[in-house]
Amino acid sequence: MTMQTNLRGRDLISLREWTREEIETVLDVAMDLKRQRALGLPHPYLRDKVLAMLFFYSSTRTRASFEAGMAQLGGHAQFIESRTTQIAHGDTAREIGEILGRYNDGIAIRHVEWGVGNQYIREVAQASRVPVLNMQCDLYHPHQVLADLLTIREKLGDPRGRTLTVSWAYAASYQKPISVPQDLVLLATRFGMHVRLVHPPEFQLMDDVLAEAAENARRSGGAFELMDDFDAGMRDSDVVYAKSWGPLLVAKDDAEGAAISARYTDWITDERRMALAGPDAIYMHPLPADRNIEVADAVIDGPHSVVYDEAENRLHVQKAVMALTMA
Amino acid sequence: MTMQTNLRGRDLISLREWTREEIETVLDVAMDLKRQRALGLPHPYLRDKVLAMLFFYSSTRTRASFEAGMAQLGGHAQFIESRTTQIAHGDTAREIGEILGRYNDGIAIRHVEWGVGNQYIREVAQASRVPVLNMQCDLYHPHQVLADLLTIREKLGDPRGRTLTVSWAYAASYQKPISVPQDLVLLATRFGMHVRLVHPPEFQLMDDVLAEAAENARRSGGAFELMDDFDAGMRDSDVVYAKSWGPLLVAKDDAEGAAISARYTDWITDERRMALAGPDAIYMHPLPADRNIEVADAVIDGPHSVVYDEAENRLHVQKAVMALTMA
Amino acid sequence: MTMQTNLRGRDLISLREWTREEIETVLDVAMDLKRQRALGLPHPYLRDKVLAMLFFYSSTRTRASFEAGMAQLGGHAQFIESRTTQIAHGDTAREIGEILGRYNDGIAIRHVEWGVGNQYIREVAQASRVPVLNMQCDLYHPHQVLADLLTIREKLGDPRGRTLTVSWAYAASYQKPISVPQDLVLLATRFGMHVRLVHPPEFQLMDDVLAEAAENARRSGGAFELMDDFDAGMRDSDVVYAKSWGPLLVAKDDAEGAAISARYTDWITDERRMALAGPDAIYMHPLPADRNIEVADAVIDGPHSVVYDEAENRLHVQKAVMALTMA
Repeated sequence: MTMQTNLRGRDLISLREWTREEIETVLDVAMDLKRQRALGLPHPYLRDKVLAMLFFYSSTRTRASFEAGMAQLGGHAQFIESRTTQIAHGDTAREIGEILGRYNDGIAIRHVEWGVGNQYIREVAQASRVPVLNMQCDLYHPHQVLADLLTIREKLGDPRGRTLTVSWAYAASYQKPISVPQDLVLLATRFGMHVRLVHPPEFQLMDDVLAEAAENARRSGGAFELMDDFDAGMRDSDVVYAKSWGPLLVAKDDAEGAAISARYTDWITDERRMALAGPDAIYMHPLPADRNIEVADAVIDGPHSVVYDEAENRLHVQKAVMALTMA
Repeated sequence: MTMQTNLRGRDLISLREWTREEIETVLDVAMDLKRQRALGLPHPYLRDKVLAMLFFYSSTRTRASFEAGMAQLGGHAQFIESRTTQIAHGDTAREIGEILGRYNDGIAIRHVEWGVGNQYIREVAQASRVPVLNMQCDLYHPHQVLADLLTIREKLGDPRGRTLTVSWAYAASYQKPISVPQDLVLLATRFGMHVRLVHPPEFQLMDDVLAEAAENARRSGGAFELMDDFDAGMRDSDVVYAKSWGPLLVAKDDAEGAAISARYTDWITDERRMALAGPDAIYMHPLPADRNIEVADAVIDGPHSVVYDEAENRLHVQKAVMALTMA
Repeated sequence: MTMQTNLRGRDLISLREWTREEIETVLDVAMDLKRQRALGLPHPYLRDKVLAMLFFYSSTRTRASFEAGMAQLGGHAQFIESRTTQIAHGDTAREIGEILGRYNDGIAIRHVEWGVGNQYIREVAQASRVPVLNMQCDLYHPHQVLADLLTIREKLGDPRGRTLTVSWAYAASYQKPISVPQDLVLLATRFGMHVRLVHPPEFQLMDDVLAEAAENARRSGGAFELMDDFDAGMRDSDVVYAKSWGPLLVAKDDAEGAAISARYTDWITDERRMALAGPDAIYMHPLPADRNIEVADAVIDGPHSVVYDEAENRLHVQKAVMALTMA
């Protein structure tokens, strides 16, 4: 048990900037908030506070969970789509940070454009007097992986020594960001998990992320292994987390990315592959999934799947982060 | 006087699934909430509760009244347009129900697509742990007709034995759903009204709705009559409710629907027709109306019109339904 | 010190209809609300009240500040974009006023279309039972200039006898409304400022506005001067307020407006021009600015600029107006 009380006013742009004890504090508060919601207890820790949510790309879960979370905490979240603003008429990142920071008590941003998103969020944060929360950028998705870690702890108990397979999977829809696998290997290695990162060669993550994940594993007593064989990566795993992302480090554009992805259409999490993992293995996915392309219905709707509990935990961890940083 | 106390957690997808006593309870609570609003009394029955409003088709009154109602009850309503979500990227109805049901305390849906809307709402409700409210589907519009019934009771007192003319009218704008006339004949016949359903032959409603309306009338001591002469339908009526809908049961597509509708451009509620009804007759319309096509300005803005009180009552009945089901 | 207590229920469409004492009351309440926010004190003067915000044209600051302000006051603001409503399907201004006025406790409207906006807002107000607030129309922008006046008083103290330069500047983006310069010269002349209105000949304001500004100056002991030389207008000024607007009184359409504007691309507020004003002069702009076209980065980001404090004051004056009119 550990708790840090210094999170008021802090940005959450990358968990790399939060200590393990600070992360433990978020998970602890998240469980407390989850219990209070189950009991119907009021918990208006942010009464009449306001969060500006700035979306450069649409999202069901992210918007719905942040907005509902603020309302449950007694506050309000503004849903601002970049297309409805005058950002196109000349609002700079500094102006957004200065001005939204004066009107609101926090700013949350989703901006997944490759090479742009994280930089933009940092520029807004630089100019903002209030906490800036990353609702997913090109590099990180901290609230998603906090929810993932909470779910793993609820299902498996202490994650130390348990095997987590973070695998690429094929999807036809579009070239998705690498933020989820990057943040997931970074976080799970800090908590002592044996992390396998599995993907075809073109789907590599950033070098500094890989190096830090390896170093995390060394310090925590976990492990970090790179693999390129989906079946081998599944074998005897405790947690299967297989989702698609684009070959963003090698492809010049979306068309080339799609062409590369199309070489690996057999990278689907189906029942045969899921059976390679342990009988008690859990299947996770941040959703939405390309059904029967990325994952078979029988898996995502089957007994190993915990995707709805995982999605629910978005709400609880986000409320914890907001309550701790914006109070 | 009657009151049912078992509405917590209930869906309102069709009033066919609510008893007459449950409907009486809604109307009673609606009048109490209306009185409290008139007096400026706080009534935060849903403090910090959250309703997700999912719109597959835009609406002024519906969105504004549900969102304002939740705020007045101390809660919050999220305005979610389907185009801003990842529903197009693979969110199924089950995922929407599971996930929005975990983030929120209720889900309201407007989905009027013929042959699709009601089915979608039922699939979401199947997966949701919280009440699902129908903000209009292809078949029903329960909150509209609750407001209509409340308005009739406010203007006429006990509706038993009073004549209600539910008539088709011509409109040029688009092929509108049949949900209002269907729900109206179903509801009014339960309350002992003498209901005339008046339309050109192509604008029939669904067989099972007609059968149930007839059975309702038999049980309640009311009447249910099918007519195809607009003038005859108006004669000595107490309540004139004339609006357009598409010939959805016979037309293959919108173009054919428009062509059929165009045969009946003289089906307008004008002063001559309104005069055929009783001198104390009231004119109702759920709005928006095609002015001087569907109804003459002199009627909708005239002394018989109660359309603004009717629109206002949307707020009060919806607050009653939300407070009773989501508390 | 003066205070008027009769603002409950009042519209704010143009400050021409508000007395100087009423405006003083708004500024006083705004400063009180600003202090409470700085101290983190709750101030839920509009608990569970609802404002409908109707936008016919997008805006970052206006929407964000009104919505955040209502939330901080304990209420809720609905963000309604005209394109998502059925206004296109037949909702008249009267229907909007009648219906939104029944669902909400206030209606705020932004409608800047030349020759249309103010008229529309007045028609809604005519039909509404609740206060109607002008979030910018073709003629006026009252909440902006209230924030401007508050900023001037914070930076300079009593504005009496101080020189305010309201100048046109070139911008490439689009033909902007004349509402800000019109409202600014009207308001500043009431408070005894020496107002210079500076623009190329085609960018004149409306005759009755000019006449009233001159009369205001005469009564208040201020001054009102028309100039067409940007440099001369800057000389020894205390407050430089230079922004673009369209030649709306003379141009037939946007193309002609752009062609006229393009004759004056050298009308930029740069460091040389800013140096012509006093060493303690402040630079103001309602934002967003066309950077390095309308104003040089070195000026808007420089030591004379107060644009972020000015933007922040939007929040405080709007909260004051809402609390006073909607309570």
